[in-house]
Formats: sequence, structure tokens, C-alpha cells
Amino acid sequence: MIPRTLFDADLEGFRDSVRKFLEQEATPYHDQWEKDGQVSRELWQKAGELGFLCPCLPEEFGGVGADFRYSAVLIEEVARAGLTGIGWGLHSDIVAPYVLNYGSDELKNHYLPKLASGEMIGAIAMTEPGAGSDLQGVKTTAVKNGDHYVLNGSKTFITNGQLADVVIVVAKTDPKEGAKGISLFMVETAWEGFEKGQNLNKVGMKAQDTSELFFQDVKVPEKNLIGPGEGQGFFQLMQELAAERLQVALGAVAAAEAAWQWTLDYVKERNAFGKPVIAFQNTRFKMAEMKAEITAARVFTDRCLELHLDKKLDIPTAAMLKQLTTDLQCKVMDECVQLHGGYGYMWEYPIARAWADSRVQRIYAGTNEIMKEIVARSF
Amino acid sequence: MIPRTLFDADLEGFRDSVRKFLEQEATPYHDQWEKDGQVSRELWQKAGELGFLCPCLPEEFGGVGADFRYSAVLIEEVARAGLTGIGWGLHSDIVAPYVLNYGSDELKNHYLPKLASGEMIGAIAMTEPGAGSDLQGVKTTAVKNGDHYVLNGSKTFITNGQLADVVIVVAKTDPKEGAKGISLFMVETAWEGFEKGQNLNKVGMKAQDTSELFFQDVKVPEKNLIGPGEGQGFFQLMQELAAERLQVALGAVAAAEAAWQWTLDYVKERNAFGKPVIAFQNTRFKMAEMKAEITAARVFTDRCLELHLDKKLDIPTAAMLKQLTTDLQCKVMDECVQLHGGYGYMWEYPIARAWADSRVQRIYAGTNEIMKEIVARSF
Amino acid sequence: MIPRTLFDADLEGFRDSVRKFLEQEATPYHDQWEKDGQVSRELWQKAGELGFLCPCLPEEFGGVGADFRYSAVLIEEVARAGLTGIGWGLHSDIVAPYVLNYGSDELKNHYLPKLASGEMIGAIAMTEPGAGSDLQGVKTTAVKNGDHYVLNGSKTFITNGQLADVVIVVAKTDPKEGAKGISLFMVETAWEGFEKGQNLNKVGMKAQDTSELFFQDVKVPEKNLIGPGEGQGFFQLMQELAAERLQVALGAVAAAEAAWQWTLDYVKERNAFGKPVIAFQNTRFKMAEMKAEITAARVFTDRCLELHLDKKLDIPTAAMLKQLTTDLQCKVMDECVQLHGGYGYMWEYPIARAWADSRVQRIYAGTNEIMKEIVARSF
Amino acid sequence: MIPRTLFDADLEGFRDSVRKFLEQEATPYHDQWEKDGQVSRELWQKAGELGFLCPCLPEEFGGVGADFRYSAVLIEEVARAGLTGIGWGLHSDIVAPYVLNYGSDELKNHYLPKLASGEMIGAIAMTEPGAGSDLQGVKTTAVKNGDHYVLNGSKTFITNGQLADVVIVVAKTDPKEGAKGISLFMVETAWEGFEKGQNLNKVGMKAQDTSELFFQDVKVPEKNLIGPGEGQGFFQLMQELAAERLQVALGAVAAAEAAWQWTLDYVKERNAFGKPVIAFQNTRFKMAEMKAEITAARVFTDRCLELHLDKKLDIPTAAMLKQLTTDLQCKVMDECVQLHGGYGYMWEYPIARAWADSRVQRIYAGTNEIMKEIVARSF
Repeated sequence: MIPRTLFDADLEGFRDSVRKFLEQEATPYHDQWEKDGQVSRELWQKAGELGFLCPCLPEEFGGVGADFRYSAVLIEEVARAGLTGIGWGLHSDIVAPYVLNYGSDELKNHYLPKLASGEMIGAIAMTEPGAGSDLQGVKTTAVKNGDHYVLNGSKTFITNGQLADVVIVVAKTDPKEGAKGISLFMVETAWEGFEKGQNLNKVGMKAQDTSELFFQDVKVPEKNLIGPGEGQGFFQLMQELAAERLQVALGAVAAAEAAWQWTLDYVKERNAFGKPVIAFQNTRFKMAEMKAEITAARVFTDRCLELHLDKKLDIPTAAMLKQLTTDLQCKVMDECVQLHGGYGYMWEYPIARAWADSRVQRIYAGTNEIMKEIVARSF
Repeated sequence: MIPRTLFDADLEGFRDSVRKFLEQEATPYHDQWEKDGQVSRELWQKAGELGFLCPCLPEEFGGVGADFRYSAVLIEEVARAGLTGIGWGLHSDIVAPYVLNYGSDELKNHYLPKLASGEMIGAIAMTEPGAGSDLQGVKTTAVKNGDHYVLNGSKTFITNGQLADVVIVVAKTDPKEGAKGISLFMVETAWEGFEKGQNLNKVGMKAQDTSELFFQDVKVPEKNLIGPGEGQGFFQLMQELAAERLQVALGAVAAAEAAWQWTLDYVKERNAFGKPVIAFQNTRFKMAEMKAEITAARVFTDRCLELHLDKKLDIPTAAMLKQLTTDLQCKVMDECVQLHGGYGYMWEYPIARAWADSRVQRIYAGTNEIMKEIVARSF
Repeated sequence: MIPRTLFDADLEGFRDSVRKFLEQEATPYHDQWEKDGQVSRELWQKAGELGFLCPCLPEEFGGVGADFRYSAVLIEEVARAGLTGIGWGLHSDIVAPYVLNYGSDELKNHYLPKLASGEMIGAIAMTEPGAGSDLQGVKTTAVKNGDHYVLNGSKTFITNGQLADVVIVVAKTDPKEGAKGISLFMVETAWEGFEKGQNLNKVGMKAQDTSELFFQDVKVPEKNLIGPGEGQGFFQLMQELAAERLQVALGAVAAAEAAWQWTLDYVKERNAFGKPVIAFQNTRFKMAEMKAEITAARVFTDRCLELHLDKKLDIPTAAMLKQLTTDLQCKVMDECVQLHGGYGYMWEYPIARAWADSRVQRIYAGTNEIMKEIVARSF
Repeated sequence: MIPRTLFDADLEGFRDSVRKFLEQEATPYHDQWEKDGQVSRELWQKAGELGFLCPCLPEEFGGVGADFRYSAVLIEEVARAGLTGIGWGLHSDIVAPYVLNYGSDELKNHYLPKLASGEMIGAIAMTEPGAGSDLQGVKTTAVKNGDHYVLNGSKTFITNGQLADVVIVVAKTDPKEGAKGISLFMVETAWEGFEKGQNLNKVGMKAQDTSELFFQDVKVPEKNLIGPGEGQGFFQLMQELAAERLQVALGAVAAAEAAWQWTLDYVKERNAFGKPVIAFQNTRFKMAEMKAEITAARVFTDRCLELHLDKKLDIPTAAMLKQLTTDLQCKVMDECVQLHGGYGYMWEYPIARAWADSRVQRIYAGTNEIMKEIVARSF
């Protein structure tokens, strides 16, 4: 009931085309992708052809120079359709920006067009087994040796982990330092010593290829260091993480809106005890309470998107947004499952998958506990 | 951390002057007003002189033709200062608009300047003992008798009930009808048969004169009917209630922001077990969670204010807003009391009063249960 | 910290033997059973040999004449181990009691020994597609025709639906009546016209064979009507449902206790930001809050078990218990997942499965909304 | 619906007599006591005559040698009636036990009969301005000087602070030590240098005389040290605090039960929109949810009472109980206020006072945050 003023007719047209593409090229295959544990490369290539990958990159690097609202549309439509296997947001709006913002011209010229076309699929490897969200505690090392670095260590919970051709790896170039010892590298998965672990079996997001990665003496050319020198990694991550959290929030709110609508349709159509489920006051109140919270979250998210477009979204605000919207998303999914009764527990119902898919949103991209710490640090 | 773009430098200047006025003319007397059960007439008169009453009225009726943002500033500053005895919002932004929007020229010319100057204090009487928020079940009757109506019945929980000089009374002009039988009247409290009941002893809002009102054969001149004819009352109320709920929300968010800030100051200053209370993770997390929710509520409220300025705030959205912000306000007050420890229970601490004052916000202006029904009806 | 006085040394000995049996004969196969969508018949047969099926049946019917505490131990140990595929509770403590309490001698002599030995696996079919928990709205019909009934209709969400050899079917014998038109029948799944639908793909409880069942002109011998005549079904269900809800509660609390303990072990062992996760106040508070709620639920459940042993557990109390313990179970699982971080989302971690498995507990055996209605009816 | 087996016919008879006494001697005066900020001495004396003070004391010390269930009845009935000004629980079951359990014969002989008769009213002074629940941080000192101690310092939030004749004061006898430096003293309020501060103005519990106390060179005879020597205070407090928390819980549950019943009566009697408020599903569900939680809390509390009677209630369990029951009490009061609509905010309605009165239960006797720390320490 509150118009989204950021999205004009052009963007709504773009949204329509994305929605149609997903309905035709993704939704019919989602069941199979869940069985496969990953989406198809074909999907990525078609998306690349249509400009749905890295739309915000300048034309010289293969993008269309769109502003972030186009990425927002892509993130929202993927989330709304429950296509949680599709890792475009990460690829386009996290991986590519590191290269664009901090990479050398050589890196940009080499990798960005490939990312934009879908020739290469990108990932980022931060979390390590046993280290969680503690970036300063990273154990993966990159040791300088002549004109290359030797990379050793392992990572886990890596989105796009099976499909990825190139991974931004967070590593310690100076193990004696904390934040200042961290650097980022563009590492190709085909290089010797780079091993992809098994595709992790998760509670949900089953079409998403989340994996462990192992590095044993991987030789990374010096030029694949992101940034003008070593030790910039922590700073670079801090700069980009606000954007990542906005993306999570955009997905969270879109998914919650979709689930709410599925549930409204369901409770209007379905009868219990001789009347539509929506006629019960409990149903009405739950739907109304959710609507209010989703609306507030929507407005809050759009305001943050607006700030981000103006490069004014600060880190604590993005952290609050991520925490609030993902907590809400999970709460909404849980209520909506309940309103579906037994059908809410059946995998064939989108709400069931959405419930299972959503749970990780409170955990990744920095747990919501980390978000609260970030917010509290700003007091 | 999110700028409030609706409020420009002029409005911030106005806010400063309101804040100073309240600091000088209201806050020092609040304790006494709590004992008296009402604020002073002097306060109203001073406010009238400074243009703080009915600022949105056109100049011809004694206002300054301000837009509603000026009223929003007044509502927010009164709420922020915890001056819950001051019933200006009701007077300026609920009572006056009924007269302005639906009253005859005669009514407008007679009453509006007096409301704007503070010569008359206004109230509105909807709720009846035993009828709650059910407007269609109103039992007060106004029976036409020649050139006047004879008013009989009683009302309760009437804000400004002791100070009021004129009250908009919701009455049945046609008891056989439900909504269509309702009309609104401007009734002066000095008229024969109009009796003010006792000032109600409430849990909080102790400086607010909330009262019962009794009407025994009160003769109300025909011209004091608001609107072009009988039976417009329900429609008029529906039109204006969205604005009333926005006002409640503006107060709720401002009060929550203030309480959060008092609490932050407290937990930074106060030590427990050898360190500042803010150093405890529980404190940090509670403060961060509240901050996120208050921020979302703030952005949502400002967006609704923006819609209201464009006359586009619909009834269900206003209902959601009222429910969400007042639920949040009470939650925030409760958490903030807890973070104050024993001092949070001491009346001399603003947080203690704010906790008690806020509780009624979920009840009046339509209970939050009614809000959910209103929202659900729109599905 | 509160001793469970109902369980003496004999019962604790029994508990040990059950626990060992499950560790050896069930846990190692659980992964495979999840893939199969059902547990093995061998497990049932071994359990039958050891007296773990229908222990409460009198010896003449193949049981050991145990009191319900022995069943409670079985339910708890299955739940504690996360072996949610094992449908013994339903078989032993819901299906068998209907036959024992309401069946003819012929039915008892024929079926009970087979249920106790594991030769036959039992199920009960109440819910219908599109009818949910509304028993009075049942559409399956059993029409008398000479010495048998002709059964037509369908059921869904039937636990043990694939493995079952005999199913108690709730059917209308008099479609003109509501509650009074309902009767229960023992129906064998091998009979002509009885078709098992597909094994339903659920969010969790993946080793549990939950299915649709279809009846097309199934001839059910008159003697397989449970009870002395038609129309007793609703009454019989009401009598037994309190026991079913107690069983759900016993499982819920045991599962919550187990999850809490896994999580305590995890947060003590696991480090984050250089210290054990348990050292963070947020972790400590969450663990303490859960501990308090689980303890209260445990004591409440044991008190209800005590009342049940005395045949004094009333229907509203059982409904409250089911609602409270399953709501708590899901809340605990959710918090425990969060405290596990990313590992809480990995299927190989018991907490991940427990989270997904538990969700249906608020839905089946009467949704928690139905529970509240039952409680409210008693006011 | 769950019988309270601990309370036999004798105790129910005692309960009746307590209830009648309170109805006649307390309830009619409660309004006046709220104005006075304290109850009357006459009430204490009458209670003493009837054996309602210190019933658990042995007969030689003026008690009747009752077990703690008699005290439980007194605590419950005072709470149920909303007579939050009556500080008997503190006097009888906290102050007296310190003397009985740790005091010298001389102290016992001197003070206990006076406490039992109501000749003297007791209090305990732990909390200090700015120190909260941190007993080890106590700043009040007791310096040995010949045959007496010289007491200096101040205390706050002292229940019975105006009426008290004798106060157990927690003081440091060895400021260099933490826990080991703490001792308890029986200090009479009439002694020179003992000054009672003002009666604190609280949000609720307005008939309770909660006060600051100031000690300036108060000479406390050596024999008034509680215990065989200095430095036992912390140990003594730890021993007795579990009992105190059980008392708080007993009051919390009794108050919640009473509020629930008032609300049930109200929603059955009161109409809204043409039907009783209880007919709305939201009302029914809220009442049912509360009933379930209150029932669980009641059973948990009674189980802890049973353990306490056997001297087996451990400190973490009592801490969980206090936290859970007082959180629930406040939640129940809040819901019940809402179900009363506007009347729930009127001081003349018991639910309004109960809401305001209950809020401090989560704060005193160790904040609920402290309770969680105590529980977590036991993991």
C-alpha cells in the first residue's frame, strides 16, 4: 500500500523481463537443481547474454553501467521466486565489485568481462572451519615466493563453491598481524592444488552449491593480489560488507513478501471447520501483524537502498538492517508454515522450502549476533 | 544514522523553539501537573500566543497555514520530553480538522480562532462506558427538537476532559441505523446539562485530564451539527482516524527514541560488577535490537507522514503503523526499565514514567486489536 | 537439577536397554532410512522380540502388562536420539489402545498379538486432504452392505503410511450426522481397493513414511468396526487424544533436552574470537533461558504423566501441554541452530535435522491452534 | 485442572482463614495505604496475634513450628489479593531465618519473639546506591571498635524501610576482601546515627514503604553480628537467597493466576461489537496461551516448593524459577491489561495496579539478568 518510489517504469519493465526469464528458464528446473545440488551452467550463460550478470559494471568491462537498483531487482526476483540456488547476487554485487573497486587494470580487464558474460562464475571465500565470522582469526596463508604467492589452508560454507571458476580468497599475508595482515586474492579453481570439497548437504537452499575449498601450495601470481599492496584485505572487506548486508536484506524482504502473499492466497481458498481459514480471527491477526512488520521492513530496506545509491549507507545501519530483516523473514516463514497446516511441511509447497531456505540468512554474511556487536560498537 | 529528509532547516529551527519553550514552560511544572491531574491553562495560552496551537489552520481562522510537519514537530517534542499531560495534538490535529473539513462557515468562524488562540480547549468524545471502540454501538443520542438537538448519554476516557471548553460529541441521530445513524456535534462544556465526571486515576499519563462526561438533556443548537446534514459522523471519523493514528505513531516513535537515548546515557555512565553496564553483551544486544526496531519504525513513520502530506495515507497503512509503533514503544520502555535496574521503577526517573505513560498507547485511538481487524479487512 | 521421581531404578534400567538398542540397531541406519523414506521392517521385528512394541498390553495379548511409564521411556529415547522415523509411539500407544479399549474380543485376539510382535505395523487415518483437524467434516464413508462396510475416500499425512499393515480409519457411517456419524474401523492395507499413495516428501522427519491413503470400495468386515456399534468414533477419539498429546509432549521435551545438551557441548568446545562460545554473555543467557523453560516443561510433562497414570489427565490440560511443549521445542531448536552458527544448517549435524524434524510437532496431533480452542472451550 | 497435592485440608483451612483475614483487615484499607505509602502497624500486630508472622519459627521463639507451606499460603494469598504493601514474606521468611539459622542464642531469644509477635518489624539491607546486585562491591563498612562495630554507609530500595524496627545490614568488615569481607548485622532503626530516607515514589507497589537508609557512625554491639564470626555474610546470603527466590516465585504465580481469573471474568461479562469479548478468537487464544504458561509455572513452582521442604532446592534451580515466573507474571499482566481495554489503565481496576506492581519483580531479589548468570555458572 506504500508505493516504492525508487523503482520507475524502466525498472518495472526490467523487473518484468527478469520475472519472465526466471519463470521460463529457472523455476521449471528448480526441482532438478535441488537434486543436483546446484543450478546449471546454462542458466548462468543465458543470464550473461541478457545482461543479468554484473549489470552495474561499466560497459568497458562487459556490464551495462546500470545503477544498483537493477541488481536489487535481480536479487528481489530471485528471492521472490524461491530460487535460492542462484548465486548471482554474490557473483555480480560482491565478487565483481572487489575487482572493480580495488583490482589493478590488468585484473579488471582480465576477469570482469568473463564474470559479466558468465564465462566465469565467481565466489568469495572468507569463513574457515572453526573460525566462523572472525576474519582476524583467518588461518589460510599466502606466502610470497618470487613473483607469486603460495596459498595454503581451507575454507567452508562457500556459496557457488562447486560452480565457481574464480574465488576471492581471504588469506593472511602476514600471520603476525591481525586485521592488517589480511589480503584478498583472485584464485582460479582450475589451478593446481585447489580442491573443491564435497557439496555440503544443508537443511535448505538445496540447489545452492555450498562447499568446502582446500588449498595446497596453490601458486597465485602476484598480480592476482587485489589492491595496491598487501594488508588491504580487512579494509576492503569492511567497505564492501555493508553492500552485502543490504543485498541479504533485499532478498529477505522480497522472500517474506512472497511468502505472505502465498499464505494469503492459501487461507482465502482453503476451508476449515466450514469457513475459509482467513475468516478466523487468529489468521487475520497473524496476517495483519506480519503485514505491518513486512511493510516497515520494506520501507526501511528501500530507504537503505536509497542511501546506498548515494554511497551513504553506513556500516551499523546496514548491520541493523540485515539483522532485522532476516529475523523477520524467519519469523514470517514460521508463521506462514503454521497457517498452511500440514501442507506447510510438505516440500512440494513453496512455503516449506522457503522456511528451510530462509534459516541460514540469520547466520551467513555475519551472524545476527555479529550484527548486534557491530551496531553496539557505534554507540 | 538515517537522515530525516522531510525536516529542513526551517523545521529544525521550529523544533528548537518548541523544545526550548517546553523546557522552560512545561518540564519544570510537570510534577505539579501530575499532582493536579492536568496541565495549566496558562500553558495553553502561551502556546496559543506562540502559534503552537493549530498551526495548520489557515490564517483566516487564526492559524499560520503551516503544513502538517509543524504539527509533527510539536507532537514529537511533547512526546520526547515525556509531557504526556499536554493534549495539543488532539486539540490541534484532531478536533480542529473536523471543524475545518466538515463544519459550516459559521462553525469555523466561531470556533477555530478560539481553538487557535487557546481561548477554548477542545476534546472529542467517542468512547462510551461499556462500548469500547465499537462506534456503531454508540448509545448517546441527539434528538432533533425544533432548532436544536437534545443530547443524552455519557462518554468516558475523554482526553482533555477536565480542561475542555468544547467537545466534539459522537451521537446517534438515528438509533435505528448503525454507521449511518451517527453524527458529530460541537458541544460546549458550559452548557446546561453537560457535566464533567471525575478526573480518572490512571496508571500513567497522570498530568493528562482524562475524564467521563455526562449529558443530560443538553440543548445543542442545530448549527453545531458538524457537516451538511445528519448521518455523516461515521464517514467523517473514518476520514480523520488515519491522521489520528499517524499522530499516535509520531509520538510513539519519538518517545521510544528518547527512552533509548536516556538508557544509553545511563548504561554508559553506570557501573555494575566493576565495569560500565554497556560493557555487558546482554546490554549491548538489547540496545542494538531496540535501535534496529526503532530505526525501522522511524523510517516507516516518516514515510507515512510523507504520504499523509500528499493526502495518500490510506486507512489500513495508518492502522498498521499505529499498531506496530505503539507495540514497539511499550517493548522499548519495558526493556529500558530493565536496563535501569531498580531506578527504572522509581517515579523520579523519566523512564519509569515513560513506561507507565506509554501503556495506554496500545489501547486508545482504537485498540491494537481493532487495528489488526482494519488491516485484515483490506486483504 | 530436579529429580524425576516417577522413574525408579527398574525404569532407568529399562531406559538403558532401550538406549543401547537404539544406538546399535537404529542410529547407524538412520541416514539410510532418511534416503529410503522409512525405517526397516527388521527394526520393528527386533523391537517386537524385545518387548519394545506395545509394552502396556496385557500378557494375554502379547504385551508385558507394563504401565505407561515404559512407553514414556521408549518415546523419550527415540526422541532424544532424533530417530524421528520410528513410529512406535503411534503404533503402541495410540493404535493398540483403541483396539484394547473399544474393540471386540475377536478384534483384540486377532490384532493385538500381531501388533505386539511387530508382525503387523499399525497406523491411524484421521486427516483428509482439505479437511485438516476437523474430524466432524470427515468425507470418507463406510456404507453398510450386508456383513461388511464399503469404504470410500482418502486420507493424508498418515504416519507409518508405507509400512502399515493395518490402519484405523475414521469414517462417516452416517453422513447426515456430525460427531455422531463417525466410526472407526480396523482396515488392512492388503485388502482390495486399499491403495497407498506416495511417500510424502517433507521438510524433515525424512525417515518417517508419511503418506496419503486411498480407499476405493474397500470391503471391511462388519466385525472390524471398533466398538459396540456405529457412531462411537468421535467419542473414542476424544477419549484417546489426551494420551496422544501427552506422547507428543514427552517427545518434545526429550528432544529439547537433547538439543540443549548438544548445544552446551558445542558452545563449550567451540571457540570464536579467541574464547569458547559459552563465554559470551549472549550464549550464556540464551542457554539459561532455554534451561529454565525446558525445566518447567519437563516438570509440567511429568506431572501430566503422573495424572495420566492415575487416569486423571483431562483433555484441556493435555491440550495445553501439547501446545506449550511443542512451541518450546521449536523455539529451542531454533535458538540451538543459531548457537551452532553455520554448522547448525548442515544436515550432518543432529541439531539441523532436529530443527527440521521438530517443526511438524506444532501441526500434527491437532494443530496448536486447535489446542488453544480446546483449552478455551473449558473456560 | 492440576491438583496441588502439597496442600492438604489443614492447609486449605489455613488458607481460608488467611484469605478472610485479608479481606477484612487489609483489602478495605489498601487505597489508604497506597496514599500513605505504607500499611498500618495495626495490621502487623493483628497478624502477629493470629500467628501469621513467622509461622515457621519454633514455638520457643514465638512461632508455631509450621513448615514452609504455611508461609507459602501467606505469600500466595497476599499476592493473590494484590496487597503488595504487605512485607510479611520478607519479615517472616527472610529476616527471621537469618537470625534463626545463623544467630547466637542471645540474638534469637531477643529478636525472634518480637518478630513473631509483630512488636518489631524486620527488613534486610543489601543494595546500595550505585551498586545494584553486586554484593561483593558493598561499600557500607562496619569497623570493630572495642565491644561494638561502627557502621557507616547507605542502602537503597529497602522493603519495609519506613516501618522497620530492625534491619539486617550487609556490611564490609574487611574492605580488602571481596566475598570474604562481608558480614551481616542486626541493626535497630532507633539507634543513633541510623536515619531513614524518604519513602521512595515508585511506579507501583505504592503501599510498600521502600526506602533509602543512612548509617552515620551507628554503634552496633558486637553481639549483633550474625554468625560465629566475621566474614560469613556472603555465605549466609547465598544459602538463603534460594529461599527468597522461591518466595518471589510463589507470589508471582499466585498474582498471575489471580489476574488471569479477573480477566476471564471480565471478558465473559463484557461485550464488544455485540458479543462477549471471550467470543473473539484472539481473546480465547490469549487466555489459553496464558493458561498453559501459568499452569506450567505453577507446577514448576510447586515442585520447587516440594524440594525446598526437603532442603533440596539448589541455587540455579531457584534462579531459573525466579526468572521464569516473574517474566511470566509481567507478560500475563500486560496481556490482561490489554484484554481489559481502557479499563485496564484505570487505577481502580485491580489489573491496572497488578500491572504496575508486578514490574519490579523482574528487578529485585537479584535481577533476572543476574538469575541467568547464576544459572549459566552451573553449566
